[in-house]
Amino acid sequence: MKKQLLILLFTFLPFWTFSQTKPYLSLADAERITEAAEAKAKAEGWNVVIAILDDGGHLISLKRMDGVQVGSVDVAQAKAKSAVFFKRSTKVFEDAMKGEGGSRIATLPHAVGVEGGLPIFKDGVIVGSIGVSGVTSAQDGIIAQAGIDAY
Amino acid sequence: MKKQLLILLFTFLPFWTFSQTKPYLSLADAERITEAAEAKAKAEGWNVVIAILDDGGHLISLKRMDGVQVGSVDVAQAKAKSAVFFKRSTKVFEDAMKGEGGSRIATLPHAVGVEGGLPIFKDGVIVGSIGVSGVTSAQDGIIAQAGIDAY
Amino acid sequence: MKKQLLILLFTFLPFWTFSQTKPYLSLADAERITEAAEAKAKAEGWNVVIAILDDGGHLISLKRMDGVQVGSVDVAQAKAKSAVFFKRSTKVFEDAMKGEGGSRIATLPHAVGVEGGLPIFKDGVIVGSIGVSGVTSAQDGIIAQAGIDAY
Amino acid sequence: MKKQLLILLFTFLPFWTFSQTKPYLSLADAERITEAAEAKAKAEGWNVVIAILDDGGHLISLKRMDGVQVGSVDVAQAKAKSAVFFKRSTKVFEDAMKGEGGSRIATLPHAVGVEGGLPIFKDGVIVGSIGVSGVTSAQDGIIAQAGIDAY
Repeated sequence: MKKQLLILLFTFLPFWTFSQTKPYLSLADAERITEAAEAKAKAEGWNVVIAILDDGGHLISLKRMDGVQVGSVDVAQAKAKSAVFFKRSTKVFEDAMKGEGGSRIATLPHAVGVEGGLPIFKDGVIVGSIGVSGVTSAQDGIIAQAGIDAY
Repeated sequence: MKKQLLILLFTFLPFWTFSQTKPYLSLADAERITEAAEAKAKAEGWNVVIAILDDGGHLISLKRMDGVQVGSVDVAQAKAKSAVFFKRSTKVFEDAMKGEGGSRIATLPHAVGVEGGLPIFKDGVIVGSIGVSGVTSAQDGIIAQAGIDAY
Repeated sequence: MKKQLLILLFTFLPFWTFSQTKPYLSLADAERITEAAEAKAKAEGWNVVIAILDDGGHLISLKRMDGVQVGSVDVAQAKAKSAVFFKRSTKVFEDAMKGEGGSRIATLPHAVGVEGGLPIFKDGVIVGSIGVSGVTSAQDGIIAQAGIDAY
Repeated sequence: MKKQLLILLFTFLPFWTFSQTKPYLSLADAERITEAAEAKAKAEGWNVVIAILDDGGHLISLKRMDGVQVGSVDVAQAKAKSAVFFKRSTKVFEDAMKGEGGSRIATLPHAVGVEGGLPIFKDGVIVGSIGVSGVTSAQDGIIAQAGIDAY
């Protein structure tokens, strides 16, 4: 009994580390995350674009709610790309850009310094990101977090 | 009574033509089209990216099924952009490119000469497009058409 | 009689909102806006580029007065694109960029933080934008506003 | 008397060659050319985009008639750029692309192999170009020529 449990733990927990695989985000994952984010947006009466990227920064899914400004299509993707490319929330860059010399962040390719982009991790490994745009950056961030919470 | 009905019909049918408005594609439309295209793809066992653009060539929605080549994310969008920018199927350009001097199409910005992009019309006005990529171009075209048929 | 009139008013006023159509900018609109902007520019002795975009950010018309710096051709279009993509004056971004951490605006795709780009609305719906470049940004803004006032 | 005439001819004809100036296209020129092209288009019932570029390939003016496909905004500019960059009609490239190995033209930056772009010369010097897009390439070419004829 104990031995079986041990084997289970041993194989299920950090399996990909020695089998040379990595976890990834499926379309089903992306849709679950998007649905949760969209539900939050609707509950608040906020219209946004929700983009989900894979670990290479490429779109898995995107959804633009009616009436959202066109610019948010690219902004949502840019925020998500920044989040997955730098493995951190775009809020981290936003805060850094408010400090002395913060504009240097703007010289980093793909860095976005506006809240609303969050990396998605599985077992400590980056698998993708979510980017939200359409309302205020703080509100975009709340929606993005609602998506992450459903993962 | 009859007169009122007549007035209603008169205003509801081609209203946008003389009041300077135009029809547009909603997210609900895009989702219905995408679902039909995805259902066809699944029924055939084909994995694809499905992109829906508005009349300005901007994403309303995108969905990438698991396992699709990364390149199809941009290809699906490029096909859709070609379809809405030139108000015609990318199959038309594909056929033209098979003719004498057909490579000249390749010198037109945004033109894509591979089947799988279709314009979406409402009351004779272009409202957007669908782009599909992932399998053969003929198969991509079948999936795109299945989407259009549901609109 | 009264009832029929009511029906007519009911359908004509906010018709596009529930019939899924939206207003758009015609070439005649663009020319009227451009003429007014150009008249203001000439009255002040300012030479500029005046660009009018549709709601997807694509040119309807552009006019470059003699002697304007070449760079203004793209700047006018970029200001206009920012205005229509974000549904706000580029002056809003200019002001934001003067505040703490304002450089983060520069990391948003298509955002321009220099006055001279204004969105064009009809019945509360965005239909396009005007972008002006050639003199100081405050002067560019005055010309753009003169264009909007003629719409 | 004769001597004065000779001096006049001598100075007025190829003046810019030894005074190191070059002729250029003014906005008034661009507008006259555009008006003639637009008049021809309207007479034929063709809706097009008409772009006029300067000798550096930068827009002086652009006009998009109502209902023209969005793609023509960039295509008209691309044709005009090809015409001024290579000092020849895009029809020359179109014909070349119909010959053996014609697709090599597509590898030249800015070359467009579709009729509708014409260079504009003054006293044998290139001063700009016109690009037309919206109908068939042969029809685009007719409209472009009507513009040139008015210069």
